[in-house]
Amino acid sequence: MTPAPSSRPPSAVSEHADLDSGLLSPVRAGSRVEAAVSDFSWLQAMLDAEAALVRAQQRVGLVPQDAADAIAGCARAELFDLTGIARRARDAANPVVCLVQDLTGAVAAVDPAAAEYVHRGSTSQDILDTAAMLVARGAFVLITADLDRAAAAAARLAADHRGTLMPGRTLTQHAVPTTFGLKAAGWLQALTDATDRIRRLLDGALPVQLGGAAGTLAGYLEYARLDGPRPAGQAGDAAFAADLISAYARELGLAEPVLPWHTVRTPIADIAAALAFTAGALGKIAADVLSLARTEVAEVAEPAAEGRGVSSAMPQKRNPVLATLIRSAALQVPAQAMILNYCMYAEDERPAGAWHAEWQPLREGLRLTGGAAACAAELLEGIRVDAARMRENLDSTGGLIVAERLAAALTPLLGKRAAKAALTRASAQAARTGRPFAAVLAQMPELEGRISEARLTDLLDPADYCGAAAYLTDRALKQETHHVGTAPDPSSDQV
Amino acid sequence: MTPAPSSRPPSAVSEHADLDSGLLSPVRAGSRVEAAVSDFSWLQAMLDAEAALVRAQQRVGLVPQDAADAIAGCARAELFDLTGIARRARDAANPVVCLVQDLTGAVAAVDPAAAEYVHRGSTSQDILDTAAMLVARGAFVLITADLDRAAAAAARLAADHRGTLMPGRTLTQHAVPTTFGLKAAGWLQALTDATDRIRRLLDGALPVQLGGAAGTLAGYLEYARLDGPRPAGQAGDAAFAADLISAYARELGLAEPVLPWHTVRTPIADIAAALAFTAGALGKIAADVLSLARTEVAEVAEPAAEGRGVSSAMPQKRNPVLATLIRSAALQVPAQAMILNYCMYAEDERPAGAWHAEWQPLREGLRLTGGAAACAAELLEGIRVDAARMRENLDSTGGLIVAERLAAALTPLLGKRAAKAALTRASAQAARTGRPFAAVLAQMPELEGRISEARLTDLLDPADYCGAAAYLTDRALKQETHHVGTAPDPSSDQV
Amino acid sequence: MTPAPSSRPPSAVSEHADLDSGLLSPVRAGSRVEAAVSDFSWLQAMLDAEAALVRAQQRVGLVPQDAADAIAGCARAELFDLTGIARRARDAANPVVCLVQDLTGAVAAVDPAAAEYVHRGSTSQDILDTAAMLVARGAFVLITADLDRAAAAAARLAADHRGTLMPGRTLTQHAVPTTFGLKAAGWLQALTDATDRIRRLLDGALPVQLGGAAGTLAGYLEYARLDGPRPAGQAGDAAFAADLISAYARELGLAEPVLPWHTVRTPIADIAAALAFTAGALGKIAADVLSLARTEVAEVAEPAAEGRGVSSAMPQKRNPVLATLIRSAALQVPAQAMILNYCMYAEDERPAGAWHAEWQPLREGLRLTGGAAACAAELLEGIRVDAARMRENLDSTGGLIVAERLAAALTPLLGKRAAKAALTRASAQAARTGRPFAAVLAQMPELEGRISEARLTDLLDPADYCGAAAYLTDRALKQETHHVGTAPDPSSDQV
Amino acid sequence: MTPAPSSRPPSAVSEHADLDSGLLSPVRAGSRVEAAVSDFSWLQAMLDAEAALVRAQQRVGLVPQDAADAIAGCARAELFDLTGIARRARDAANPVVCLVQDLTGAVAAVDPAAAEYVHRGSTSQDILDTAAMLVARGAFVLITADLDRAAAAAARLAADHRGTLMPGRTLTQHAVPTTFGLKAAGWLQALTDATDRIRRLLDGALPVQLGGAAGTLAGYLEYARLDGPRPAGQAGDAAFAADLISAYARELGLAEPVLPWHTVRTPIADIAAALAFTAGALGKIAADVLSLARTEVAEVAEPAAEGRGVSSAMPQKRNPVLATLIRSAALQVPAQAMILNYCMYAEDERPAGAWHAEWQPLREGLRLTGGAAACAAELLEGIRVDAARMRENLDSTGGLIVAERLAAALTPLLGKRAAKAALTRASAQAARTGRPFAAVLAQMPELEGRISEARLTDLLDPADYCGAAAYLTDRALKQETHHVGTAPDPSSDQV
Repeated sequence: MTPAPSSRPPSAVSEHADLDSGLLSPVRAGSRVEAAVSDFSWLQAMLDAEAALVRAQQRVGLVPQDAADAIAGCARAELFDLTGIARRARDAANPVVCLVQDLTGAVAAVDPAAAEYVHRGSTSQDILDTAAMLVARGAFVLITADLDRAAAAAARLAADHRGTLMPGRTLTQHAVPTTFGLKAAGWLQALTDATDRIRRLLDGALPVQLGGAAGTLAGYLEYARLDGPRPAGQAGDAAFAADLISAYARELGLAEPVLPWHTVRTPIADIAAALAFTAGALGKIAADVLSLARTEVAEVAEPAAEGRGVSSAMPQKRNPVLATLIRSAALQVPAQAMILNYCMYAEDERPAGAWHAEWQPLREGLRLTGGAAACAAELLEGIRVDAARMRENLDSTGGLIVAERLAAALTPLLGKRAAKAALTRASAQAARTGRPFAAVLAQMPELEGRISEARLTDLLDPADYCGAAAYLTDRALKQETHHVGTAPDPSSDQV
Repeated sequence: MTPAPSSRPPSAVSEHADLDSGLLSPVRAGSRVEAAVSDFSWLQAMLDAEAALVRAQQRVGLVPQDAADAIAGCARAELFDLTGIARRARDAANPVVCLVQDLTGAVAAVDPAAAEYVHRGSTSQDILDTAAMLVARGAFVLITADLDRAAAAAARLAADHRGTLMPGRTLTQHAVPTTFGLKAAGWLQALTDATDRIRRLLDGALPVQLGGAAGTLAGYLEYARLDGPRPAGQAGDAAFAADLISAYARELGLAEPVLPWHTVRTPIADIAAALAFTAGALGKIAADVLSLARTEVAEVAEPAAEGRGVSSAMPQKRNPVLATLIRSAALQVPAQAMILNYCMYAEDERPAGAWHAEWQPLREGLRLTGGAAACAAELLEGIRVDAARMRENLDSTGGLIVAERLAAALTPLLGKRAAKAALTRASAQAARTGRPFAAVLAQMPELEGRISEARLTDLLDPADYCGAAAYLTDRALKQETHHVGTAPDPSSDQV
Repeated sequence: MTPAPSSRPPSAVSEHADLDSGLLSPVRAGSRVEAAVSDFSWLQAMLDAEAALVRAQQRVGLVPQDAADAIAGCARAELFDLTGIARRARDAANPVVCLVQDLTGAVAAVDPAAAEYVHRGSTSQDILDTAAMLVARGAFVLITADLDRAAAAAARLAADHRGTLMPGRTLTQHAVPTTFGLKAAGWLQALTDATDRIRRLLDGALPVQLGGAAGTLAGYLEYARLDGPRPAGQAGDAAFAADLISAYARELGLAEPVLPWHTVRTPIADIAAALAFTAGALGKIAADVLSLARTEVAEVAEPAAEGRGVSSAMPQKRNPVLATLIRSAALQVPAQAMILNYCMYAEDERPAGAWHAEWQPLREGLRLTGGAAACAAELLEGIRVDAARMRENLDSTGGLIVAERLAAALTPLLGKRAAKAALTRASAQAARTGRPFAAVLAQMPELEGRISEARLTDLLDPADYCGAAAYLTDRALKQETHHVGTAPDPSSDQV
Repeated sequence: MTPAPSSRPPSAVSEHADLDSGLLSPVRAGSRVEAAVSDFSWLQAMLDAEAALVRAQQRVGLVPQDAADAIAGCARAELFDLTGIARRARDAANPVVCLVQDLTGAVAAVDPAAAEYVHRGSTSQDILDTAAMLVARGAFVLITADLDRAAAAAARLAADHRGTLMPGRTLTQHAVPTTFGLKAAGWLQALTDATDRIRRLLDGALPVQLGGAAGTLAGYLEYARLDGPRPAGQAGDAAFAADLISAYARELGLAEPVLPWHTVRTPIADIAAALAFTAGALGKIAADVLSLARTEVAEVAEPAAEGRGVSSAMPQKRNPVLATLIRSAALQVPAQAMILNYCMYAEDERPAGAWHAEWQPLREGLRLTGGAAACAAELLEGIRVDAARMRENLDSTGGLIVAERLAAALTPLLGKRAAKAALTRASAQAARTGRPFAAVLAQMPELEGRISEARLTDLLDPADYCGAAAYLTDRALKQETHHVGTAPDPSSDQV
């Protein structure tokens, strides 16, 4: 009844291969993070958890070294029938039960005695939750690497364009001048804020799960009593429990939890928050790029690449596809994260459904965010900035964009309210007639003879009204130096 | 640069096969609906759309018959490199552009002249949106088949247990008696309401998409002008457009839209509503089963099956896994549906991201709902109902569960408010002391001598206080007969 | 212990008045729909339900006419301490329990005998759910009135601008020409689709709730047995139940449900779907307006009004505030609707929380959607369309926007692939050099001597490449005539 | 045109008072947090922001002391027409524009010169975002106070019930024994995790907003140039900007942001995460209480209080209303938080709608979470724990609940797989026949003569199989001591 683990029959694979190749999610299709959260990666992570569990038990004296070695030796995902496990998972509502059957069979084939130690004292949730932390860690290391690339690129843009003037826009309308450097500094800030939140997770907020059937560790303790020379009583239990949790966490490089978190889903909720944040931060960058890349605005363009941004019908098109893909992720991730929040409603010692609903949204959240981070890195590293066009757009309203400044300048002459009223009228008249704003203004009855057109023209120079944009840009760049270069290397062993 | 279509190299498949085998979503792993919405199915649906488009153009006189045949002959998903298309899709942010390249190449290999007619005048969205409708139709036919099975089972339960007494429960507490028949009638109603909403979609609310690059049909018309003997002028254009839309819809058995719906996403939003509704309806049934299956309640049990409901650790466990799986879907589908609602915010003639964010949530919503429907059918067809236990639970509070009835009976003696106050005190006293409710009541000072303990005992018989439960059950059963047997046959050609 | 109903003490009101005056939700502040879903309106609707319930019981012979009249006479919201009820509601987790206390007290003050008939046989959910349907109906009538206004305006725009050329835009880039008429026709379609879905609700999908404590009608039947000359047995019960449901529904002009829907939340889920749909449809219109109103695009402007669209700082600003407000609603409504979908997960005969979580999101969804509909009506009735600017933008790319057409025209000369490649190169060259597209093209080596620059210039006229835009516009307008003028009059009694 | 601020006319108030008195949201009706996030509180917070802004400008030498005093003196919410401002807010899509008009008018009435300094150089978003931080801070201080109360109560429960045995339940079924102490320790952990995340916000993550019209501080700098003896050039601008940000933050006790966060919404997203987390944590406690309070389980009961938990119809009911209310909040908050995540998609220097959609969901999230926290504190402080009933339920399955233990004990005799199989059969047989599990086991063929019924009976004692529950409880209690007593005092000035 228990299928022996085997190299998968090609036919079965080929049939099943087509469930999800990324066809419907180009933002992550073929990305490294997609592979890092694949079913295969999850399967390997579950096997890593099983192997680590038996090693931890070996370290605390419960399992012979060679049994632990035999189990670890079999804990290789390529030995298992992934599709078969996925389908048989329905019977227990989770894949661990049949994975344990298959792993036990595989170990028994090489070392029957060792098979007795597989998953001993454990429960499905200890394995799957721990695997989730391993998978999330691997994905987050990749994501932060791409966020770091994106942040470095944003920092370069901020520095390079510290003085590049452009129209500031609010509610779709020209507001007052700003600089592209300050805009890029905002992107940098968004990216470092996201990275900070993920690093906080990587630095000790991803714990192993270890509790046994209902979170009391009773199964593990029972075997300790049966097998080992454990000191009796609660003190002995406490020491054993502490040692086991600690050994398990060390094996995997994950954090030690205070309690089993079977139904107190702090790590999952924290991951959800980090994903929603990061996707939101990336979305903000995409929003800006899409706004600035519009045909009529044309202040930025996406990096050119062979075949990139093409249309099936229109040969002239150069679509901002990277921003489009980021946007597509930003529309999905908050909802996936929210599902994880709803799953915190977990009754008893294991909920009937709320746990089971976490896995796919967790994966979706990770791969969409990761795909978006990779797109953002590529986008910011290659974005084309058209400073001349920015200036052209800035000048296109004939000075209306610095009307706020004139309000300040005219207030001493007219009072605040009257100044604003005069400017409102003059703005409307300039817009309607096409006459230069300065000329219109100079002839307003309130102002005639009180301020020269030349002075007004000076005041209307957008270059002289970008406030502390340069200082603020520097402020963000300075802060960012604390973040650069501290990312774990995604090619290192730990990933 | 354009890879020729080919039977996929096994190595590439095998690597990619492991992205999603259903391991993280046991509610749908291995289900028919999972296959119906797989990447392979989407690819085939896109090819079906391309083939239908050229056939429709042939019918209106623009394409030679043999060219249409050649294209249709190549429109078989197994001829294409699915994974490669998925990955190359990133360049255009959608998979149609490179699919068209590959299809053109495949056709050119057999009939170079025919290759000129591939995707002629068309746009990615015409193909992908039409494919989405084909995929959704196929999935919904499967879903309604399972809903019909579930409804038939619920109807049998309602009829069989028309008189099976059980405690009605509100806010987790015994309220007044009800019947299991009425509960099953509620499930029936939920299921038929869901089916109605899906049938409404299948009956004319799933349209083809046909608009060309920006929804004007200009590309199609241009080729008509170049090639055909089309009457000139707007009247000719109108006739041609009408004919083409109509021919395309007929080819695929889909509805004709009034307008291209590139950015007016009515069909997607309607599907979202049907999915959220159905998952919610199925979730309600799961909620009841999970409540009634609790160890202490034990009024129902899930159908037994070899290996079903087992625990990795606890040999005695029989977990309600079908309800658990349904619950896991019900926690995910509303959020997926909501993403589709957010995607209605589609600017211009094609949005940068809102379209691209639809595909995966649409698929997730369909397969989760479909998996849940299959679980529900299996659950309701095999559910074990323990009428004796229901009666035992009903009696366990010594008549408190009909306190409402006593309030009615005592009101003529004491007035409404005093009657309720007396019963509140007596309830508390009976609960506290464990004495029979009737005995406590008979000795309340207000009632002493005014009503006998025997009469009170009669009034406390739960069997005599289930109101119109039987009538209401009949009412639901009668209504349901209008729905049975009208489902499309999922094995028919149209699926 | 039961506070007598009273005119509210001004101090308490004044303190509490400030919870929500709409300050944080300008899209609905001061709107008619806001008032229609206010606490006061809900309170009145609950009282209407109580009054209708006693009248229905009177009609089936259980309550004296004068008692029903006395109760109806007291069922006026202004007689009750709304804030007090709101706060006391915490004890029962719903406001009906204390409302019934206060209503009973008020009736007792005028007719002690009648007080015995208040809420007799009933349960909180019968009252609150019925009130929800009344409130929803009132809101939807207002919403459809505004949707009809908006649709009429969209229809006028479509007709007036049937031939107004503008750039079609996809993924933020110019794609091919379209017309503003066709865009407005899309808005019309979105609006009529939304209206259709709401009308479907108003036409029989908003039922009374009537079930008693656990949905069996037992309480109502008990009083019928005690008081009335009801025929005994199940047949008598059935007849009584049928009559009571029917009489109650008739009193309120709501639909008759097949079953009590205490935990089968079809009507709520249907409302959720209609709200998410409508907000999405309105959001699409806002998306277009925001895109077209950008300073650099400037093809449309919002209707001017004194003080509208002003900035606190920038005198020149004319912000598209109506579209902004609609967008703010479109960002909130799908989530509120989704909460209602999650609340379908309702265990037993009344859930502990899932019912209670419905009320506020239902209200939010209604008032946000209603506020957005009112904004959309105002926006479309007054929108300023700048056809000259549209033409200017259309011409701004020197013909690149009809590159698709050239691909069709050159295909007979070069073949499809070569034609597209030539155009891609020429597009890039024209964009880079600023030379006219036709001139660049005429000198491409492939084309030299095969097609004249004059013919190319003709082909590049955007006016000649808007496909079937006019026909499609007509198609939408024709369909729309089926919808106009069928709205219930919001000033009629039923509202 | 600008209405003078005034004490509100009672009639207007009374009409508007009824929009939202909490009637539809009993979880927060009448709570302190509801008042802390009321429109009145928001209005006061906006006025506080205006007053702090002018004081900060005074500190950096731009505004005379008496002008700052005059403005601060008028910045009292009770002087303004709240409802009028709410309704006029529609014109600008935010309430600040008309609030500034009214404040200017009020100041002008007492000190016309001072009126010139109102909102000088500022923008709506500087005021409203800063107000949002003030309101959030006030609400979070109240929330943490209630979370601390709840945590202290959970700690007491954990300590008091460190040895109270009860059934551990997974997927609704008895699994293995646990203790109520460990369950309460889990609640404690959930609560301290939530508090940690909120404290992280209160400790420096709630910044002022200060950027002027497009985030460059240009308006503020312009007045500094006009009025003050500011050093010229970028160095002077930088120093001024740094001083102004710093002074403003100090005035309000909020953090200094690196950059204006008009469209980089880190603080809002962080708040969203904290709210979703806290509501989820509270929901988990409610889930457990609802599970344990079921009539058939009856292991806990909510604290009794006069009128609490009553039904409108059933005198015997004692509903778990506090848990029900918490659940109602837990169903709403994740969606409100998610809206805030979607609002991170903020284009340009101020988005058209994404900002405006934040305010109400932010308020809803705060007051629902706060109401739930208050319910949780009351619930945990008064919860009734029935240890005898727990033991009774534990024993009700005749030892099946320790089948896992027997699997361990029998493994040395039979091997792991055979042991599990034997136990599975025996469990089923015991459940079917009602015979004692030990007796059935002792007679299994595999075991006959290999282990005595007495030894089996010993092994089946649940009291001896609760693992490290006591140790884990201690572990949580020890950790918790780091958290107690560090909450800001909600009655202190800063709130």
